[in-house]
Amino acid sequence: MAQLRKDTVTGRWVIISTTRGKRPSSFMSERREKTQTATCPLCYGNEHMTPPEIYAIRPEEHSEPNSSGWKVRVIPNKFPVLGIDGELKKQGVGMYDVMSGFGAHEVIIESPDHKKSTKDLNVEEISNVITVCQDRIQDLYRDTRFRFVLVFKNEGEEAGASLEHSHSQLIATPVTPKRVKEELEGAGQYYKSKERCVFCDIITQEKDVGKRIVYENDHFVAFCPFASRFPFEIWLLPKTHEVDFYASRGSVSDMALALKIVLMKLARALDNPQYNFLVHTSPNRYPRRGYWHTIMEDYHWHFEIIPRIIRIAGFEWGTGFYVNPTPPEDAAKYLREISVNI
Amino acid sequence: MAQLRKDTVTGRWVIISTTRGKRPSSFMSERREKTQTATCPLCYGNEHMTPPEIYAIRPEEHSEPNSSGWKVRVIPNKFPVLGIDGELKKQGVGMYDVMSGFGAHEVIIESPDHKKSTKDLNVEEISNVITVCQDRIQDLYRDTRFRFVLVFKNEGEEAGASLEHSHSQLIATPVTPKRVKEELEGAGQYYKSKERCVFCDIITQEKDVGKRIVYENDHFVAFCPFASRFPFEIWLLPKTHEVDFYASRGSVSDMALALKIVLMKLARALDNPQYNFLVHTSPNRYPRRGYWHTIMEDYHWHFEIIPRIIRIAGFEWGTGFYVNPTPPEDAAKYLREISVNI
Repeated sequence: MAQLRKDTVTGRWVIISTTRGKRPSSFMSERREKTQTATCPLCYGNEHMTPPEIYAIRPEEHSEPNSSGWKVRVIPNKFPVLGIDGELKKQGVGMYDVMSGFGAHEVIIESPDHKKSTKDLNVEEISNVITVCQDRIQDLYRDTRFRFVLVFKNEGEEAGASLEHSHSQLIATPVTPKRVKEELEGAGQYYKSKERCVFCDIITQEKDVGKRIVYENDHFVAFCPFASRFPFEIWLLPKTHEVDFYASRGSVSDMALALKIVLMKLARALDNPQYNFLVHTSPNRYPRRGYWHTIMEDYHWHFEIIPRIIRIAGFEWGTGFYVNPTPPEDAAKYLREISVNI
Repeated sequence: MAQLRKDTVTGRWVIISTTRGKRPSSFMSERREKTQTATCPLCYGNEHMTPPEIYAIRPEEHSEPNSSGWKVRVIPNKFPVLGIDGELKKQGVGMYDVMSGFGAHEVIIESPDHKKSTKDLNVEEISNVITVCQDRIQDLYRDTRFRFVLVFKNEGEEAGASLEHSHSQLIATPVTPKRVKEELEGAGQYYKSKERCVFCDIITQEKDVGKRIVYENDHFVAFCPFASRFPFEIWLLPKTHEVDFYASRGSVSDMALALKIVLMKLARALDNPQYNFLVHTSPNRYPRRGYWHTIMEDYHWHFEIIPRIIRIAGFEWGTGFYVNPTPPEDAAKYLREISVNI
């Protein structure tokens, strides 16, 4: 089982994944031979190649679990970063802090079609994927040991994908992750001094200024953030104040449409770049409603979409600064001007 | 000139580099054609191809600046991330915070020999590189607008190197970087509660436990940190309490020897991996001696060496967690067992 270890100096948690336990030789062979899987375990007809499914949208009346006939299918990750078996144990090891690698790691297969990437799915299909992710988070948050669930996507090998067939993932963690905490704390401080949500203020300013907007529809807006870390980084937010991604149910089709258009524009602008996207949403407030109460007004869930077109080097690792060679105003202008047919 | 922009939510600074201003097409062409420079601007005889040198070790009596005859040569980066021209200006843009991209970005050419990487240099040559870096930091810290200088190295294209000829870099920043601040704050809190340096305590514990030690000599110790973010990550520290890298003068040859041996072990273990190393040291305390006074007891400078053998994916970007597939105990054991001839 994996282990969570805390860096004594910075408080940063690291997952030491022993199930993936890799010897030096395995890194080297990986570099040499690109593994080509002959049979895709995420395709129709190969359901037996995956662990038993957790959830699926099965419109066909007689389709059994773990058979074909699904539209979206959720399975446990075969090599989970955190495992659902065992217990959440915390202990000290000398001066260090350790936690058992308790969590959940699921794969959301977005479509039976091996050839389609997320942007190629239609709005209804993307809406289905979103709804499934929302349902999974809501279900996982019933277990109060899960503090946070991250929904994310790795598209392309350099962005971390190990399978070609289009899929998203989610990982439930027993602590609130550092990056989410930083946003919660920043948004909390802003709210304290202004009594307004910082993300709502950013949306107002961005709409007012206009030059970083990429796309908007009735319920969602996408823009290149003022302090973009990466060229063509895009944030996608609900226009009205919403705390929880999983509770954003009224306008899922607008969310799917915005996501599809933004991904299509990126694909056109950068010739199908590899990318990551991730959803930052409120932590699980169930176990301690009092403590997290103010988040209702502070926090605003959103997508962050990160094309993987530049490399992170020593300066970035050493400082936490990012060096972005494309001003977000230029990136947004370029993306706005790309017209896409949906 | 570049611009520093602050993320309103998290307080993270980003450098928007307009001098490098890149259009989408330039990212795409970069992907397709690997640029092969016919003539290396860092080699002997090509000194005219670089900006005029800032500093050099020139043992040959009659060797003129910007001619051959140097052992280590420091030049301004031709495409600086931060520029030394202009002034440090701070302003608000709507709700956002902006600072002019004031700083310094220098390249330390480690050897005239195009074919030698850092690990191939002898102890005296590496000592020279270290001393030059120390001198440059000391010189830059005289300008009180510089809050921090990061010395780092990108080895290999995937680690961010754009030239093959072995070189390190340094970047001076007008703010203390986030990652350094996190360490300073963590170390400060530890000191407050224990009245001891956290890094000194870590060294004691690591030497006591032994299983994560990679190498040690009289003055330096190298180990895989307990909460290693990456497989085969190594920290290298002076064994006695030292705050400033640039002031670590008494045992430079032990530092060079430790660095050489650790890099040789990594090269053997992982078949010449691409890597980054970076030096975390105290910020510039000159301008505000009072404020930074306690750092004298809190902080402990060190190298962090990061082999670039795994990819960072959506989960890491979204959470700030790292997933490390090789326990540091395994990595250290493997590295200890590799014998190297120097």
